Amino acid sequence: MLDKTLNAGDSVVVIGLGRFGSSVARSLHRLGHDVLALDHDADSVQALADALPHVVQADATDLATLKQLDVGSFRHAVVSMGESLEATVLAVLNLSQMGCPDIWVKANNPAHGRVAERLGAHHVVYPETEMGERVAHLVTGKMIDFIEFDDGFAIAKTRAPAETLNKTLSESNVRQRHGVTVVGIKRRHQDFIYARPETEVKPGDLLIVAGPTAVVERFSARV
Amino acid sequence: MLDKTLNAGDSVVVIGLGRFGSSVARSLHRLGHDVLALDHDADSVQALADALPHVVQADATDLATLKQLDVGSFRHAVVSMGESLEATVLAVLNLSQMGCPDIWVKANNPAHGRVAERLGAHHVVYPETEMGERVAHLVTGKMIDFIEFDDGFAIAKTRAPAETLNKTLSESNVRQRHGVTVVGIKRRHQDFIYARPETEVKPGDLLIVAGPTAVVERFSARV
Amino acid sequence: MLDKTLNAGDSVVVIGLGRFGSSVARSLHRLGHDVLALDHDADSVQALADALPHVVQADATDLATLKQLDVGSFRHAVVSMGESLEATVLAVLNLSQMGCPDIWVKANNPAHGRVAERLGAHHVVYPETEMGERVAHLVTGKMIDFIEFDDGFAIAKTRAPAETLNKTLSESNVRQRHGVTVVGIKRRHQDFIYARPETEVKPGDLLIVAGPTAVVERFSARV
Amino acid sequence: MLDKTLNAGDSVVVIGLGRFGSSVARSLHRLGHDVLALDHDADSVQALADALPHVVQADATDLATLKQLDVGSFRHAVVSMGESLEATVLAVLNLSQMGCPDIWVKANNPAHGRVAERLGAHHVVYPETEMGERVAHLVTGKMIDFIEFDDGFAIAKTRAPAETLNKTLSESNVRQRHGVTVVGIKRRHQDFIYARPETEVKPGDLLIVAGPTAVVERFSARV
Amino acid sequence: MLDKTLNAGDSVVVIGLGRFGSSVARSLHRLGHDVLALDHDADSVQALADALPHVVQADATDLATLKQLDVGSFRHAVVSMGESLEATVLAVLNLSQMGCPDIWVKANNPAHGRVAERLGAHHVVYPETEMGERVAHLVTGKMIDFIEFDDGFAIAKTRAPAETLNKTLSESNVRQRHGVTVVGIKRRHQDFIYARPETEVKPGDLLIVAGPTAVVERFSARV
Amino acid sequence: MLDKTLNAGDSVVVIGLGRFGSSVARSLHRLGHDVLALDHDADSVQALADALPHVVQADATDLATLKQLDVGSFRHAVVSMGESLEATVLAVLNLSQMGCPDIWVKANNPAHGRVAERLGAHHVVYPETEMGERVAHLVTGKMIDFIEFDDGFAIAKTRAPAETLNKTLSESNVRQRHGVTVVGIKRRHQDFIYARPETEVKPGDLLIVAGPTAVVERFSARV
Amino acid sequence: MLDKTLNAGDSVVVIGLGRFGSSVARSLHRLGHDVLALDHDADSVQALADALPHVVQADATDLATLKQLDVGSFRHAVVSMGESLEATVLAVLNLSQMGCPDIWVKANNPAHGRVAERLGAHHVVYPETEMGERVAHLVTGKMIDFIEFDDGFAIAKTRAPAETLNKTLSESNVRQRHGVTVVGIKRRHQDFIYARPETEVKPGDLLIVAGPTAVVERFSARV
Amino acid sequence: MLDKTLNAGDSVVVIGLGRFGSSVARSLHRLGHDVLALDHDADSVQALADALPHVVQADATDLATLKQLDVGSFRHAVVSMGESLEATVLAVLNLSQMGCPDIWVKANNPAHGRVAERLGAHHVVYPETEMGERVAHLVTGKMIDFIEFDDGFAIAKTRAPAETLNKTLSESNVRQRHGVTVVGIKRRHQDFIYARPETEVKPGDLLIVAGPTAVVERFSARV
Repeated sequence: MLDKTLNAGDSVVVIGLGRFGSSVARSLHRLGHDVLALDHDADSVQALADALPHVVQADATDLATLKQLDVGSFRHAVVSMGESLEATVLAVLNLSQMGCPDIWVKANNPAHGRVAERLGAHHVVYPETEMGERVAHLVTGKMIDFIEFDDGFAIAKTRAPAETLNKTLSESNVRQRHGVTVVGIKRRHQDFIYARPETEVKPGDLLIVAGPTAVVERFSARV
Repeated sequence: MLDKTLNAGDSVVVIGLGRFGSSVARSLHRLGHDVLALDHDADSVQALADALPHVVQADATDLATLKQLDVGSFRHAVVSMGESLEATVLAVLNLSQMGCPDIWVKANNPAHGRVAERLGAHHVVYPETEMGERVAHLVTGKMIDFIEFDDGFAIAKTRAPAETLNKTLSESNVRQRHGVTVVGIKRRHQDFIYARPETEVKPGDLLIVAGPTAVVERFSARV
Repeated sequence: MLDKTLNAGDSVVVIGLGRFGSSVARSLHRLGHDVLALDHDADSVQALADALPHVVQADATDLATLKQLDVGSFRHAVVSMGESLEATVLAVLNLSQMGCPDIWVKANNPAHGRVAERLGAHHVVYPETEMGERVAHLVTGKMIDFIEFDDGFAIAKTRAPAETLNKTLSESNVRQRHGVTVVGIKRRHQDFIYARPETEVKPGDLLIVAGPTAVVERFSARV
Repeated sequence: MLDKTLNAGDSVVVIGLGRFGSSVARSLHRLGHDVLALDHDADSVQALADALPHVVQADATDLATLKQLDVGSFRHAVVSMGESLEATVLAVLNLSQMGCPDIWVKANNPAHGRVAERLGAHHVVYPETEMGERVAHLVTGKMIDFIEFDDGFAIAKTRAPAETLNKTLSESNVRQRHGVTVVGIKRRHQDFIYARPETEVKPGDLLIVAGPTAVVERFSARV
Repeated sequence: MLDKTLNAGDSVVVIGLGRFGSSVARSLHRLGHDVLALDHDADSVQALADALPHVVQADATDLATLKQLDVGSFRHAVVSMGESLEATVLAVLNLSQMGCPDIWVKANNPAHGRVAERLGAHHVVYPETEMGERVAHLVTGKMIDFIEFDDGFAIAKTRAPAETLNKTLSESNVRQRHGVTVVGIKRRHQDFIYARPETEVKPGDLLIVAGPTAVVERFSARV
Repeated sequence: MLDKTLNAGDSVVVIGLGRFGSSVARSLHRLGHDVLALDHDADSVQALADALPHVVQADATDLATLKQLDVGSFRHAVVSMGESLEATVLAVLNLSQMGCPDIWVKANNPAHGRVAERLGAHHVVYPETEMGERVAHLVTGKMIDFIEFDDGFAIAKTRAPAETLNKTLSESNVRQRHGVTVVGIKRRHQDFIYARPETEVKPGDLLIVAGPTAVVERFSARV
Repeated sequence: MLDKTLNAGDSVVVIGLGRFGSSVARSLHRLGHDVLALDHDADSVQALADALPHVVQADATDLATLKQLDVGSFRHAVVSMGESLEATVLAVLNLSQMGCPDIWVKANNPAHGRVAERLGAHHVVYPETEMGERVAHLVTGKMIDFIEFDDGFAIAKTRAPAETLNKTLSESNVRQRHGVTVVGIKRRHQDFIYARPETEVKPGDLLIVAGPTAVVERFSARV
Repeated sequence: MLDKTLNAGDSVVVIGLGRFGSSVARSLHRLGHDVLALDHDADSVQALADALPHVVQADATDLATLKQLDVGSFRHAVVSMGESLEATVLAVLNLSQMGCPDIWVKANNPAHGRVAERLGAHHVVYPETEMGERVAHLVTGKMIDFIEFDDGFAIAKTRAPAETLNKTLSESNVRQRHGVTVVGIKRRHQDFIYARPETEVKPGDLLIVAGPTAVVERFSARV
């Protein structure tokens, strides 16, 4: 059923092609990875058929089906099977039994996430919850973008506080005073500039700052 | 119904308390903002009642209800009403008619997003799609985390390429050679170090690099 | 799919072929207009297939489909998609994006009507509500028919009040006394007569009167 | 249950309070009629409770219930019970058995209409179909409003044809040439003017014309 | 579709082939009548296909369909369309409009029966109610069978009261004493005997008695 | 729960109060029997509450419930529990286990009837089928009423054949010629007359005839 | 439809191929019996098609179907038709009418079991209840396995009580002291040993003991 | 909520009170164990309330609820939550996280069983499958009862083969000839007799035999 040119050894199998799964599959394909995309629903398969070379209608809760597709030889798997914990659980178990070395699972809540980990998932993702946290940082308009890395380190695009305007970065001494590093500066209608000590911040500039999450949050709140 | 101490002028009203909405509301509260959280479903309201001071069961598709809650005086609104375009549409229209100056909407797909914008939404968020793109960068294990800002500038936490090991950053000259800036370095069991020219990269280190999206993606692929 | 003889430039596309839509489409066809009638439901399409030359089964919430049917070149569009606000909203948005210069929408209630207008509808119609108002004028049997134009001017077919019987219109002087103009007279088993000052009203005659809505209503109540 | 001040002898009972029925009931009340409004659905009753003095939750398919409410003494009844032919049929039969002298029924299609008439309905109304016909006359923008009376006589508000501009009505001689009577003229930002022979038509004026339906349609098509 | 040998002029059309309708159709066929049996449900049609020569899958609520089957030329029609008043109502109306001279309708309750009569049904049957009444007479075991004709005259098969045993009918003088006529006598393992004055009633005999309903009921209660 | 005045020993318990069961219960009550009427559905119980002294909401599939109501002491039981074979089966089993000496069951078809008999039912009734057979005899209008007793003996009310008109019964000699006995004669606007040899049959008279089923059917077909 | 080599006279028909039925059918086949497996559901049939030679999709509630498959000539039948009492009841009745001499039925509860027996079932099995009882004996870990025969005699595999360790069976004298017979001994990594008086019990041994249920339970509780 | 006298340390918590779970709970209680029985369904709880001292309505998929009930201190847990894998999975995970040392799970099929084991279940039971296997041994009537212990050792109650009749066990020498041990003998209307060499087998006796499964099966097939 599969095109023989698919080099499974270096590829990703994406199981479940809803909004999240199809976004993963499309992006991986755009990044140059070989992707096998699976869903048991014919419409979901059809919707991706033109965008990706390997889209298959198949039931991932059935071990024999996965074996027939040689899913065991893929290096990475991403499982996102909607609201049903049962389907996710069986797919993860199948992948785990086939020895898949890197299983990513989209979960609805921490309980589902723990189940997935116990069954062999290596990574659990909570898109709604994580995006909710990120949007919370942006909604008041002081930060323009924000990301927290998993070890308490965050990067934000934020408006420049008044005290930094019309000064060079070395003059305003942001790292010393506020504990964040200015990584770059975005000026309207221009490309990003890598921040240097002699770079001057002007009104309307946006700063990319990095640092411990709480420190970045505090710095942004000064705006 | 509402506690009079809620300073609506500087607050956020969160409409729809599913996974995304409740995550937004909890994070905003943690960040110190005044939050009014609304849902028409009693269970969703109950689930947040202990975590937030202002959680109300109310139908946001009804203008009179929103007026009674003085929602018009809030500075920001976040609308995430699940699968139903109809509920989202009516809530956004109501907020827009009440003059809400900053409306965020969670949408399922671009068509829904366009409808929301035409009705007055200022920002549209696609959590499943955006998280799908982000996970696609991480799944092959070279990047550890990744974020794309909306103007083609990205930041990634990535393993250190072989050519940078056991050299200082000025020696390996990453910015010149690969077009990305190393912002910081994460060494196992240590805090993040702000990257300096004299910082030496050691095996096992993770690099935080910034730069145009495609350049960051290429750099990470070298690992 | 479409007959090439359809002159779309001067035509009307009717989207949604329920009771209202199919009535619009049939009447337009009878009046000599070119009509393209669309519905996603096969039965609704089948029911009109013999009555109209251009009836197509298609999903109007899908922009690509509408483009393929060259819907953008039609001068007028009538959207009546039943109870679902979502389908109406997406169809109106699509028409608006394609630059349709005249969009009519059937709405269930004022909130839906406002949404349609915000998305680009030029006219909103409420058949049930408007017919309810009209029937209310007729139900007591004094008026035989009634229509209110949108600027407070109404025309009614009404029984002749006692004071007008067996007099010419100039004798009974209706316009002076009651503020309404008698436009015509309907005598049983005869054609309408255009009202003239010398026309005599006989028992059993029906009068067509015009005037400000409230004045017409008052005149009719005298019967 | 009913306020004793309701003078049923001269009143209208409205059975079924959906969009059509509630519109009928509200308009009748506004016109000064005594109205008893009935629905078996508590929400529909609640929605009208503040607008009308006599709104009752009751099952009109049950003869005993109608007798208890003394519905038999009402002069007029309007029945509009949604999609269900069964409910309509039983309500009409009950009214007919109670001797109601004037029964109006909203029907979905001619077959349902015929059933209602056989069971004793005196008038049958098809709101969707009739409004569809009316909108068909307006959609091309030449007529602004249109109504057909049931004996082939119609009245329309229409743009003034070029040949009538800057002439008095007697000069353009519309009745002779086109077979329609100009009843009045609407000039932007002014009240309606009753048409007289010496009235001059100006660019932008709208004409109210009356005449046989086909003649009025033809006249309007000249615009 | 129909065998041309069907002599519709003297035939019965049976509409609705549930338990009642198929029993009617089978019995009529057994009695030598030409029968056209109709149902819109394929399974019901299939179940009778071997038993009757003319069984057709068709929708009797559609006038055109009935005309195509030349149903108008049948002398009798039996309509039994299950729980749905709507289907019954439309079928009866169609038959009535086609001039069917003898329409029988199975109804669920008197209200449905009255609707059917108003639409043109000539006979209304209530199988459950009528059988319930009949069974009520039999359940205490004194009567063995019972039927009430529609004008207060009944016939019953009943055990012989003690006072009639071992006497001739003229000796026991049943008609004089109890007001019922003994029509016949059923003796175990024998054929019925027509009752004559000299016939002797023996223990174990069953009597067929006729008379006014109440008198028959009283006589049977003496057993 | 039960009124102590109910003399269960001579009474009938009616289980299931649909159309059939409530008809049985009402008729038994009218005939002077003590009746206990049971249904698990509150509405069905309510509908009979005013008509009968002993109506109880109870689940007859539960043995303990039946024992609590002392159903075991009733002489007769009538079970008619709608479409569900399961409920019927459990109720019959319960009655049988309690030693009820006379169980009547309404069945939908012969398979259900056989099940009921195997579980202890003494009589099985098929209202729809039996009424269907009876109506089949009447529908062509020759017979006015018809009943077949279970041993091949039938009684019919039928129009008088031409050969019997204006003759006495002894002259037309019906029993000899056609094998049926004329039991009585019904003349319009008069009471029934018991048939005697000297009774003269007049045009318009209806005859009540008795005899073997096939003979009665043949006699009626001569009309 | 059936392979002619199936020797029905010595075979088992299994009706209903859910978890229980398919387990019965597979085991019988493994034990060398001829098995005919039936289910009305295509998927259930498909799931067994490779494992058994005679699997047929058929409706066992239809007597004609069973006769066509010559089910009457089978010696044993096992009926397990899920939650539906109706299907079970009709299948058992059919088997019983065909004279099946040995009918096994899986029942959900004692009421269903009694119905099945009254209709002709010879054996009734309650898998969930019986396995529940068995697991109750094992869950505390003293018994390893347990079975109660239907006449109060039980056999258990149980840990050896301390008082029996390092003694021969004749020394510990279990039968005298505790009323149970040691049938065999299971030593880790060895086959079972038939218990003899001179057999010595060692730590870690498991005993197979037999005796009256209560005595075996008491013995096991000593562990 | 719980009676303080419940000694949880030596007790069993039974989660899910369907047919299997309630059978487990009742048997454990009868055997003298302390049992806490849980179900989220009020009816299931009610049905056991009189039979057991500790029955609680609670949601076992919620960790906090289980902690509140101090479920973590129970030594054994039995989980049988019907068809839903999701509920089972979450309950098992919760028990496992609370450190429950002995978790039994009822599973529908091996895939579900494997999931349960991966999440921490120590024992998995398949009642339908296991009872199916057991019934398969009994259905042909040679064995009367049968149990297979998990290591290939079985015990059966079986009819006595002809060759053993009217001989002592030492004469027929069953163990030597057939490899099975006769453990006991059941004679009609008598208690079980422990088998001794000098016990004589009589016609009609049933033998309890033990041995390797296949050998026992073969021995029984000789009957």
